[in-house]
Amino acid sequence: MSEQINPPARLLMGPGPINADPRVLRAMSAQLVGQYDPAMTGYMNETMELYRAVFRTRNEATVLVDGTARAGTEAALVSLLEPGDRVLVPVFGRFGHLLTEIAERCGAEVRTIDVPWGEVFDPEQVERAVVAHAPKLLAVVHGDTSTTVAQPLAGLGEICRRHGVLFYTDATATLGGNTFLADAWGLDAATAGLQKCLAGPSGSSPVTLSDRAVEAVTARKSIEAGIREDDEPVRANRVRSNYFDLGMILDYWGERRLNHHTEATSMLYGARECARILLQEGVDDAVERHRLHGEALAAGLQGLGLTLFGDQRHRMNNVVGVEIPDGVDGEGVRTALLGDYGVEIGTSFGPLRGRIWRVGAMGYNARKDAVLTTLAALEQVLRQAGHRVVAGGGVGAAQERYQEAAP
Amino acid sequence: MSEQINPPARLLMGPGPINADPRVLRAMSAQLVGQYDPAMTGYMNETMELYRAVFRTRNEATVLVDGTARAGTEAALVSLLEPGDRVLVPVFGRFGHLLTEIAERCGAEVRTIDVPWGEVFDPEQVERAVVAHAPKLLAVVHGDTSTTVAQPLAGLGEICRRHGVLFYTDATATLGGNTFLADAWGLDAATAGLQKCLAGPSGSSPVTLSDRAVEAVTARKSIEAGIREDDEPVRANRVRSNYFDLGMILDYWGERRLNHHTEATSMLYGARECARILLQEGVDDAVERHRLHGEALAAGLQGLGLTLFGDQRHRMNNVVGVEIPDGVDGEGVRTALLGDYGVEIGTSFGPLRGRIWRVGAMGYNARKDAVLTTLAALEQVLRQAGHRVVAGGGVGAAQERYQEAAP
Repeated sequence: MSEQINPPARLLMGPGPINADPRVLRAMSAQLVGQYDPAMTGYMNETMELYRAVFRTRNEATVLVDGTARAGTEAALVSLLEPGDRVLVPVFGRFGHLLTEIAERCGAEVRTIDVPWGEVFDPEQVERAVVAHAPKLLAVVHGDTSTTVAQPLAGLGEICRRHGVLFYTDATATLGGNTFLADAWGLDAATAGLQKCLAGPSGSSPVTLSDRAVEAVTARKSIEAGIREDDEPVRANRVRSNYFDLGMILDYWGERRLNHHTEATSMLYGARECARILLQEGVDDAVERHRLHGEALAAGLQGLGLTLFGDQRHRMNNVVGVEIPDGVDGEGVRTALLGDYGVEIGTSFGPLRGRIWRVGAMGYNARKDAVLTTLAALEQVLRQAGHRVVAGGGVGAAQERYQEAAP
Repeated sequence: MSEQINPPARLLMGPGPINADPRVLRAMSAQLVGQYDPAMTGYMNETMELYRAVFRTRNEATVLVDGTARAGTEAALVSLLEPGDRVLVPVFGRFGHLLTEIAERCGAEVRTIDVPWGEVFDPEQVERAVVAHAPKLLAVVHGDTSTTVAQPLAGLGEICRRHGVLFYTDATATLGGNTFLADAWGLDAATAGLQKCLAGPSGSSPVTLSDRAVEAVTARKSIEAGIREDDEPVRANRVRSNYFDLGMILDYWGERRLNHHTEATSMLYGARECARILLQEGVDDAVERHRLHGEALAAGLQGLGLTLFGDQRHRMNNVVGVEIPDGVDGEGVRTALLGDYGVEIGTSFGPLRGRIWRVGAMGYNARKDAVLTTLAALEQVLRQAGHRVVAGGGVGAAQERYQEAAP
């Protein structure tokens, strides 16, 4: 018989998941209520309101999808895209490839544009592709954790409006730790997860849809067999998934309260607490906190003599890419950091596998002690690996950045 | 700003979700670890082993899908069914309709057979339909909570083998509280949820696949763009969902540990604890416990002068359907039970909406005090609603059943 759960103490300083805020875990330990209990529907309504503030939107259609971040992505794409619809995906890292992958499986006709990993697109490049391909949807990752850079989204919404294109972004890696303005940027759909800057566990995906997106989704809505009234139509173009049919999910979260899945109550408690904590701090202050600790981390890594990866003008606040020095065993360093110091940092994917580490400071771990501990441990591990490092160089450079912020 | 989570005290005696076992909630409050931390992959392996014992299977492919019970159902159907494949669904309640619904959205050609709600099928009926329709897959709900009855599955596996048909069941409502023998019954795929007899919250779906099912799934597997090696094929018949592609999910849980979603760690901790608690009690003992409290509940409801609904020879152990007496406002009774006693019971769907209540005793709430409290409260509420009830008749009849069990 296996033992009761007893995970080792870890400081998760990779690209996410990160340590959950203990307040989120406590909220999740609250006892359950029934799915139509007035307390439960009240919590659902509050959660909608809280995530409107997190996404900076007035969208009524702001809900949770019960699954991990990619569940939210798939729900948005499968609900918005009909087979044969064209979608444009600017790919600047692994998660752009994931968008193409999901859209293809939805039956969409996918067009991509590419930049080298570590770079982002100019709005003009995107507009040219929009004109060339005339997609129904522009789907773009906001921050691609695989490369640590974020695509600027301001301006893309206007391009989409001008050309009659719907605009979706995957904000999993950025939301809560980087400026994100769903309405001001003209987004029609945005999805996220809890396990990055929102300081929660993976398993619930906040989703927001503009009125235009709701219209597109609702036009395809078919109530499911078993609860459908006789006079309700089954549409030929209904969404190719039941679980991810946002039209039905909106009916469950909306006034009609039409039964769909059984809401994942504990995850909802957690998602609600993540947003509550973020709004208590203030979204702008949380973004500034992520910026400060990200800058301190980046300065510290350079102070150790390491070279940052990616276009630093577009680096996400919450994760720093750093090149693995020649002659250093990247996985060996990660293993020693975890084994000797309990500190986890990440590797990357595809062309960057084995080339960079990814070090994050986000959510609950966007803290000075977490950053300094990580830099101190990394210095020791690099030295032990036979790599020349400046003694105290990482912590010193980070401390300087902190001094500038609060002299 | 909304307040910290503080749900009202409820005794959830409907068809599920029910109160989570406090041990499960405590397990879920453990801090997170990274998704490839040896501790995490260790917990994943343990969870696989635990659910093999719960499902009574030797299937290597026994994992969690990150979503509610219907996520597991959709994962099984979309991974096993290709567009145009024929599937046979014996429908005996709402969740049979849900299987048809999901299978249709997968592009499958669905054939159904029906019995009136409250009844189940003879194996001969099913075999005749298998012969007539020659499906690739037989998909049947085990216990349909909408009607409270369970379809006997023993014998159906052999029919499927004889005719070369894959055999799937949705065991959400039954697993852990009713005899369930995945291997002995010849099942190729079974899926469940935590929020019924397993005493956890909704949001994680245990899934098991036979070697035949794994073969069917693997034959369609395409590693996703962004992590695919150059020499790995993209198959024309790849699964129409990324999130629910069990081939990729198995690669994530298996030795290859290929990145897919970020496992919902807290839900995994909970799912693991649900199984651990069940196996500590012993699956057979847990089933007997559900049988005892279900019988006491049924006896008590009859003792109150109410009429049970559905074929009682096939009633699930964990939920009892009872007709709403003429002249009684069913919703009014439910509201008074919840408001005055904190006790929740259920209503039903479709043809049974407003006709029956569903009263459950499952998981953590399959307890004598929960059953007696519910019967005592219901007696008071029925009396207040002007319905004639025998004073003490419900509790008395239940006590008699308990006396028989432990004289």
